[in-house]
Amino acid sequence: MATLGLVEYQNASAEVRAVYDDIMTSRKTDYINNFWKALAHDPISLKRTWESVKQIMAPGALDSLTKELIYIAISASNQCGYCVASHTASARKQGMTDAQFAELMAVTGMANESNRLASGYQVEIDDRFKT
Amino acid sequence: MATLGLVEYQNASAEVRAVYDDIMTSRKTDYINNFWKALAHDPISLKRTWESVKQIMAPGALDSLTKELIYIAISASNQCGYCVASHTASARKQGMTDAQFAELMAVTGMANESNRLASGYQVEIDDRFKT
Amino acid sequence: MATLGLVEYQNASAEVRAVYDDIMTSRKTDYINNFWKALAHDPISLKRTWESVKQIMAPGALDSLTKELIYIAISASNQCGYCVASHTASARKQGMTDAQFAELMAVTGMANESNRLASGYQVEIDDRFKT
Amino acid sequence: MATLGLVEYQNASAEVRAVYDDIMTSRKTDYINNFWKALAHDPISLKRTWESVKQIMAPGALDSLTKELIYIAISASNQCGYCVASHTASARKQGMTDAQFAELMAVTGMANESNRLASGYQVEIDDRFKT
Amino acid sequence: MATLGLVEYQNASAEVRAVYDDIMTSRKTDYINNFWKALAHDPISLKRTWESVKQIMAPGALDSLTKELIYIAISASNQCGYCVASHTASARKQGMTDAQFAELMAVTGMANESNRLASGYQVEIDDRFKT
Amino acid sequence: MATLGLVEYQNASAEVRAVYDDIMTSRKTDYINNFWKALAHDPISLKRTWESVKQIMAPGALDSLTKELIYIAISASNQCGYCVASHTASARKQGMTDAQFAELMAVTGMANESNRLASGYQVEIDDRFKT
Repeated sequence: MATLGLVEYQNASAEVRAVYDDIMTSRKTDYINNFWKALAHDPISLKRTWESVKQIMAPGALDSLTKELIYIAISASNQCGYCVASHTASARKQGMTDAQFAELMAVTGMANESNRLASGYQVEIDDRFKT
Repeated sequence: MATLGLVEYQNASAEVRAVYDDIMTSRKTDYINNFWKALAHDPISLKRTWESVKQIMAPGALDSLTKELIYIAISASNQCGYCVASHTASARKQGMTDAQFAELMAVTGMANESNRLASGYQVEIDDRFKT
Repeated sequence: MATLGLVEYQNASAEVRAVYDDIMTSRKTDYINNFWKALAHDPISLKRTWESVKQIMAPGALDSLTKELIYIAISASNQCGYCVASHTASARKQGMTDAQFAELMAVTGMANESNRLASGYQVEIDDRFKT
Repeated sequence: MATLGLVEYQNASAEVRAVYDDIMTSRKTDYINNFWKALAHDPISLKRTWESVKQIMAPGALDSLTKELIYIAISASNQCGYCVASHTASARKQGMTDAQFAELMAVTGMANESNRLASGYQVEIDDRFKT
Repeated sequence: MATLGLVEYQNASAEVRAVYDDIMTSRKTDYINNFWKALAHDPISLKRTWESVKQIMAPGALDSLTKELIYIAISASNQCGYCVASHTASARKQGMTDAQFAELMAVTGMANESNRLASGYQVEIDDRFKT
Repeated sequence: MATLGLVEYQNASAEVRAVYDDIMTSRKTDYINNFWKALAHDPISLKRTWESVKQIMAPGALDSLTKELIYIAISASNQCGYCVASHTASARKQGMTDAQFAELMAVTGMANESNRLASGYQVEIDDRFKT
């Protein structure tokens, strides 16, 4: 169970409800996932984290699906089970196909492999890659 | 300096040259970067790694730029200086703009933050995220 | 289940019991947690690890609660579920409040975020930070 | 060099200068470190990241020095050279002694060790640690 | 459950069956573990990953047991529960004793500890270690 | 430069010299590497860390070279430049060949890749791997 427990809507303060409402409106859903409920014991962190996520994940120079794919790649690299599960669900909602997921995993695996080859072989940065 | 040194084209065996040639042809360049030269003391690993990279990074369900962005995100998460430098250069060659890079970094930072909030708060996976 | 199983007090050798006794005395408890029972198949590692933990976690220039907070921060960063759970329990015993925990998590998240911004943006160390 | 270069005060937009001014005022310094200058090509990320850092690192349930110590512990765990250097400097400014630093490192090392013993031995979470 | 589900032999395409058959022949077993079944929705990744594993894990300059030990060490460092479990089983099949496992864990813990002491203390590489 | 500077033998206390002497005797060398000199400002950590390393890295159920290989694998996975450099040097002194190093790197890369495939695909542990 989450360290501080989960704050359900009906037990939430007005401050927390305002964030929950904004999450539901922004995401066009009536569901608040456990991540937010676990954070909600600290309304300031809840609000700051949500505002950051909302700003960062909005479509911009990169579209929303690309951003979700990046989130999954990092979460898999970091072995964050919760984050892999929740962002895989989000990516599917945004249209991720099985073929895209499989290619995402292949890149994720390869990047993690080559990151270690580079450090293990002590490869120096090529002059032309120094910006 | 790289652990086993760098194998330059003129000193390379036919086996290594064949890989170098394929890298240059596939990437439309006459430059072989240090990563491959450092691996080339082990021609079998060189060939296997290159074949995997070529297959995985080819455009498919995801385009090549998206794949490079994922590579950068993981390399930054893993603190691999070489990989950040080389894949940032690759992504630019494929058209990555400064605005795309900045958004990529924002997502990378946020994902790394929320990955730790999820584990630190011991958030359980929502039933609906269990596939 | 733990790889080598758990060694219960009643089945433990004199060598292992001596460590268990010291853990219980030092921590003013009659409970040995699974971590130590899992290690106990290797009495030398058990003893060395416990002696190190006892020395390192004792109050000194930093108090015991601060040390537990650092332990949680690292365990959350590393996605070690066992360690987050056990050290959160220890920190509570030492008086950690919910407000302290929430701030700890906020710092942990932020540090993990900015660590990746620094590597992703390839920020060079300021001359004045070179000691 | 930083991927997008460093934005110096004299070349900064009004938006960026406002953040720089706030950093200097809040920290009682006339120095902006490279991290912020590297981020400044993306004024929105600059502002969001600074606002988050300012809020999170302010003294609250945990004092500022404790927060800096946690930052160093995580940065060392993540192998972020920039972050170790910059936050060690910050911690010193806030009064960190050599003895505190040495104990911080000992805890950081031990936590990273025991995190891996827990995962490697596949230790199950004790029932009493399940909150 | 695995993201894309598990592909059982009886439901597998000829392409996937060929890999499964090769796994069973090479490993002298009639069991395909979940890792491969989870990958099998992407037959190209399945084949590439298996071919790489088969080539890399074959005895060569290092024997098979040593390679499995290295696999466990990395999996424990990365907090990959699945990988620790599966490679511990493989290592046992190859003759790993409890004493070897315990020493492996001790080295894994120590390496993770000293890796952080080196970064936290900002230790510079000795000239003689620069190859 | 190391955070607290390096303690050279001629400036060291008797306590530190005793550890340095033991390092040189045990390793049959007259060289103390920077790691120990950086730790030496904290003689208690220096002694504890050295005693642990000496005990853990001694030949036992695993030989010394195997232990060094594991150290390199973890250091490369963790992106610890210092540790890769110093343990590669140690392994060479213990007879590591280029072919062994190359295979070590291949396993290190593969393990890091498959660790992420396992977490990204959310593969459940096979019942038979639950010990």
